Amino acid sequence: MDLTKISDPSFLKELGNGELEALASDIRSFLIRELSATGGHIGPNLGVVELTIALHRAFDSPQDKIIWDVGHQAYVHKILTGRACDFSTLRKYRGLCGFPKRIESEHDVWETGHSSTSLSAAMGMAAARDIKGADNHVIPVIGDGALTGGMALEALNHIGSERTNMTVILNDNEMSIAPNVGALHNVLGRLRTAGKYNKAKDELEYLLKKIPAVGGKLASTAERVKDSLKYLLVTGVFFEELGFTYLGPVDGHSFEDLEANLNYAKKMEGPVLIHVLTKKGKGFRPAEEDKIGTWHGTGPYKLETGDLIKSPAKAPGWSALIAETVRRIAREDKRVVAITPAMPVGSKLEGFASEFPDRMFDVGIAEQHATTMAAGLAVEEMKPFLAIYSTFLQRAYDQVLHDIARQNLNVFIGIDRAGLVGADGETHQGVFDIAFLRSMPNLTIMMPKDENEGQHMVRTAISYGDGPIALRYPRGNGLGVPLDEELREIPIGSWEILLEGADAAILTFGTTIPMALSAADRLREKGIDAAVVNARFIKPFDEEMLKNLLERKIPLVTVEEAVLAGGFGSGVMEFAHDHGFHGAIIDRLGIPDKFIEHGSVTELLEEIGMTDEALADKVEELVGLSRQKGMHAL
Amino acid sequence: MDLTKISDPSFLKELGNGELEALASDIRSFLIRELSATGGHIGPNLGVVELTIALHRAFDSPQDKIIWDVGHQAYVHKILTGRACDFSTLRKYRGLCGFPKRIESEHDVWETGHSSTSLSAAMGMAAARDIKGADNHVIPVIGDGALTGGMALEALNHIGSERTNMTVILNDNEMSIAPNVGALHNVLGRLRTAGKYNKAKDELEYLLKKIPAVGGKLASTAERVKDSLKYLLVTGVFFEELGFTYLGPVDGHSFEDLEANLNYAKKMEGPVLIHVLTKKGKGFRPAEEDKIGTWHGTGPYKLETGDLIKSPAKAPGWSALIAETVRRIAREDKRVVAITPAMPVGSKLEGFASEFPDRMFDVGIAEQHATTMAAGLAVEEMKPFLAIYSTFLQRAYDQVLHDIARQNLNVFIGIDRAGLVGADGETHQGVFDIAFLRSMPNLTIMMPKDENEGQHMVRTAISYGDGPIALRYPRGNGLGVPLDEELREIPIGSWEILLEGADAAILTFGTTIPMALSAADRLREKGIDAAVVNARFIKPFDEEMLKNLLERKIPLVTVEEAVLAGGFGSGVMEFAHDHGFHGAIIDRLGIPDKFIEHGSVTELLEEIGMTDEALADKVEELVGLSRQKGMHAL
Repeated sequence: MDLTKISDPSFLKELGNGELEALASDIRSFLIRELSATGGHIGPNLGVVELTIALHRAFDSPQDKIIWDVGHQAYVHKILTGRACDFSTLRKYRGLCGFPKRIESEHDVWETGHSSTSLSAAMGMAAARDIKGADNHVIPVIGDGALTGGMALEALNHIGSERTNMTVILNDNEMSIAPNVGALHNVLGRLRTAGKYNKAKDELEYLLKKIPAVGGKLASTAERVKDSLKYLLVTGVFFEELGFTYLGPVDGHSFEDLEANLNYAKKMEGPVLIHVLTKKGKGFRPAEEDKIGTWHGTGPYKLETGDLIKSPAKAPGWSALIAETVRRIAREDKRVVAITPAMPVGSKLEGFASEFPDRMFDVGIAEQHATTMAAGLAVEEMKPFLAIYSTFLQRAYDQVLHDIARQNLNVFIGIDRAGLVGADGETHQGVFDIAFLRSMPNLTIMMPKDENEGQHMVRTAISYGDGPIALRYPRGNGLGVPLDEELREIPIGSWEILLEGADAAILTFGTTIPMALSAADRLREKGIDAAVVNARFIKPFDEEMLKNLLERKIPLVTVEEAVLAGGFGSGVMEFAHDHGFHGAIIDRLGIPDKFIEHGSVTELLEEIGMTDEALADKVEELVGLSRQKGMHAL
Repeated sequence: MDLTKISDPSFLKELGNGELEALASDIRSFLIRELSATGGHIGPNLGVVELTIALHRAFDSPQDKIIWDVGHQAYVHKILTGRACDFSTLRKYRGLCGFPKRIESEHDVWETGHSSTSLSAAMGMAAARDIKGADNHVIPVIGDGALTGGMALEALNHIGSERTNMTVILNDNEMSIAPNVGALHNVLGRLRTAGKYNKAKDELEYLLKKIPAVGGKLASTAERVKDSLKYLLVTGVFFEELGFTYLGPVDGHSFEDLEANLNYAKKMEGPVLIHVLTKKGKGFRPAEEDKIGTWHGTGPYKLETGDLIKSPAKAPGWSALIAETVRRIAREDKRVVAITPAMPVGSKLEGFASEFPDRMFDVGIAEQHATTMAAGLAVEEMKPFLAIYSTFLQRAYDQVLHDIARQNLNVFIGIDRAGLVGADGETHQGVFDIAFLRSMPNLTIMMPKDENEGQHMVRTAISYGDGPIALRYPRGNGLGVPLDEELREIPIGSWEILLEGADAAILTFGTTIPMALSAADRLREKGIDAAVVNARFIKPFDEEMLKNLLERKIPLVTVEEAVLAGGFGSGVMEFAHDHGFHGAIIDRLGIPDKFIEHGSVTELLEEIGMTDEALADKVEELVGLSRQKGMHAL
């Protein structure tokens, strides 16, 4: 059928089984075709085609609340709720968002991007329903990977204890973002292999109910027998222990099985968990056969062969550069250990893992545990490298502050994907870390201007022994500069003048250095000599250099691909006023006080006025102001 | 015995059972007597007297790592490691810390204060041991309440899957900080009531091992029979499902039982969890009989009667004022719902809970879930009041940013214990929230000057419908001002001039307003007229008033009981420079870039130079500078 003609999911209720199969097939073809051009989270979405259709048949969205955990598996939901026509703009600037988005559709009742929030959101929505006396259903859909996140476990615990009505869909696929880690996954594995025990259990319960209840004692014996037999039938009782009625495992690609279980769950009192087995990438061989997560989310690919279309890399990727330098140092320094919360591939730690399997820990989606475990390693004189995306470090704010910074432990935090990340949008922009880390005592924060400085900063971080040190690096590839053979340490708190200039100074670091150099070129044409400073230590500052610049009484402009409030530029203002430079002309370029949506980084920077042209204009204006002020003083 | 003569715990190994009982009794008497003068966490410590002695007998600290979760139950450990003589200074300025502290003793291997970190720390220390090839033991001691924290569950999951050697002590007492909540607690309850099944299990395992192993099939049948029987013996298999060997329940006040289990655990491979039942407050009747947590942590009390020594309250406590105003509004507005992560007593929500039991949610120690659940409630048009201490809000940074602020949901966050908290010290100071919240788009942050403004701010927060709004309020009591009968809304972003002054302006909010007024008095004596501004909206600013002040070209001094980096004062600097007031003289008083230890708030403020005198001096200096500058401009 023509999927672009779908306006809402009500038509699904009229379809017969053959039509459902045909629809699933059409959706798969559509996704495989559309995503070959745009890229996107193909694997997770191909896995939930039948599940999404079955959910929209069994429930009445938006009265019933379908809540997608993480949200990257909501493409089928977007198609069924009238958005197929927008898929050519998927994850593009001002186009369809790659995650649920409330302004896009009334069927998107919850926005997300980070993992493990769906159960807590569902508990809130279910509590609201019960207070209002409404009777809608609440259906969080959570993957087996997301379930290892602490907040999901907190919610599971609370929901089980309150016995709140809801139907949790546990979408258990063999491949989550990375091979799953953790005991919980073992539990799921045991449940999976137990097969279809549900029917036997039902029959048993039916029989037991026939025994006349003659008093507490018999009932209790019957209970025990029932439990014991059930335990023989399936060795995993994890969810039932927590207070859920457990249904499954259910074949997530069988409409019949899904429908039977969803309809059964709808009628039950208390929380129900349906354990649904799906296959990521189903229907597209390269994605089905993927074992390490390449097809979790991709760029464009060739429809015929399934080959990824890669633009030839001009320079090493940042994650690989950092991870491989850590690995290189780990060869000589046995104290070096690496930790990742479920991102071994994204953080390019595969090489480290294969060379040092005993010194590599993938802890699953568990940023809090990863961070405090790093602190524990540091207490025992190891040198942990905690590789974590900027946006996910937000989950470990308190662990960085309370466990690492407060105890002043030597943890090396690799902040990957720092700055704007592009297509993943709002939920994933790595723009808050400076603002939230800068106020933590004892913490050093740096960002390199290029790969060569990046590798030296890895050396610096591992050699440093006075507390925690964070190294920010962006998504994507470096500049292609030559790499020194020998690694060296960069003095803590040292900035570098990249370009001398007597009229003004641009202070920046990392990805925005080329912008500053280009602005300086533009300014030179106008007769203004602007210095460009590589402020590679975001904390501590190069106090001597900054004082020297302030003493020159030239305007200072800071540039950062991070939020302005409380950021690097604010730090420069704080320093100036704290040291009595109250007349200093300081201005800032950076991310304003709003969330930045998806699009290419270039488009986003343009939107918020972060371009070399805008920067040059600002400097020019301030130089004018400064000269005017100078005139006044004469 | 004279406990002050103890230098280290090695002497314990020589003691016989009678001597151990006598020691336990001496420690109890000591704690009850000492804490009657200083106050402190009496309940938790009286509960772990035997457990702590047994741990130090069975293990060799500090080679073996005993890790106290939360840490307020480490007093007995402090006594046994040579610190009895310091108890008169407990939780006092420069005195003995109320939590483990690495500089105090080599036996304090891990510092804490926040809950649920011990298992992650233990995993780090155990991993370090295994990499080094050492053979020391690692023994985290965690309470049943702390176990519901997400990061503890993340760690449990990881440890179980890695099968890392460690002995987890689950200290299960019937009263944690508040009556425990959550399904996990039900699981523990079931384990507890199962009684001493351990011996039976041991015998069974012994018998099963006698069956000759003739192949996988028999072993597997035996396994199943064993598991099935075990399941009949004890209905909770939660921990074993996760990969732990479960021992217990053990009587936490029996040296014999503790010793047997600890020694057994030492010899086992893989992670072991010993479920120890203790009684909080044991040996001190008022604490034993406490059902709601009064004796969890107290101030001084009368030794004879157990009556708490209360200084007569001059004014309502802040928590009560805020919670009771929420309750008052909830009577008319059925959308109002309250959420607390395990702090119903501390947040004074008992009244709300008893009047609106269906609209009150105590979710246990689970700040992340509490915060996102509030977001879920707001999505469904409820008006959630999320009461959370400033220091614990750190645990929910990402949930506030990603779930509440990003979706711009109407959640009312009550930030209790904002500012310095005193005796709890470093881990509990509520001084980071402004720095970490100010950069979150959509969020409004306010703090009242007194209780009357406080109650109007509650009205303001609940009426506000444009996104999340946070109300900070300090620990302790208000000023005793009269309360208006009728509640009213305060215009968002409006400041208030408390005192006019032509020479300078002090901008501050909340607890530091009296300091500012007093500084203004001092200045007046010196002929300087300083205005005092109640900057009650920390975000957004009263832009008109601030612009007006900047136009006057008088020095501005900001005062905040919060970290300076990225704080309110930085915001004022940002505003000044963004609006072209580059010549503005701005200075800040606040918390410098270090962690602030325990002591009275007055002592701590003095230490960091936050006094009315220092403030007056600063203003005077700047006024001098300003006049000089004015001279230059002439």
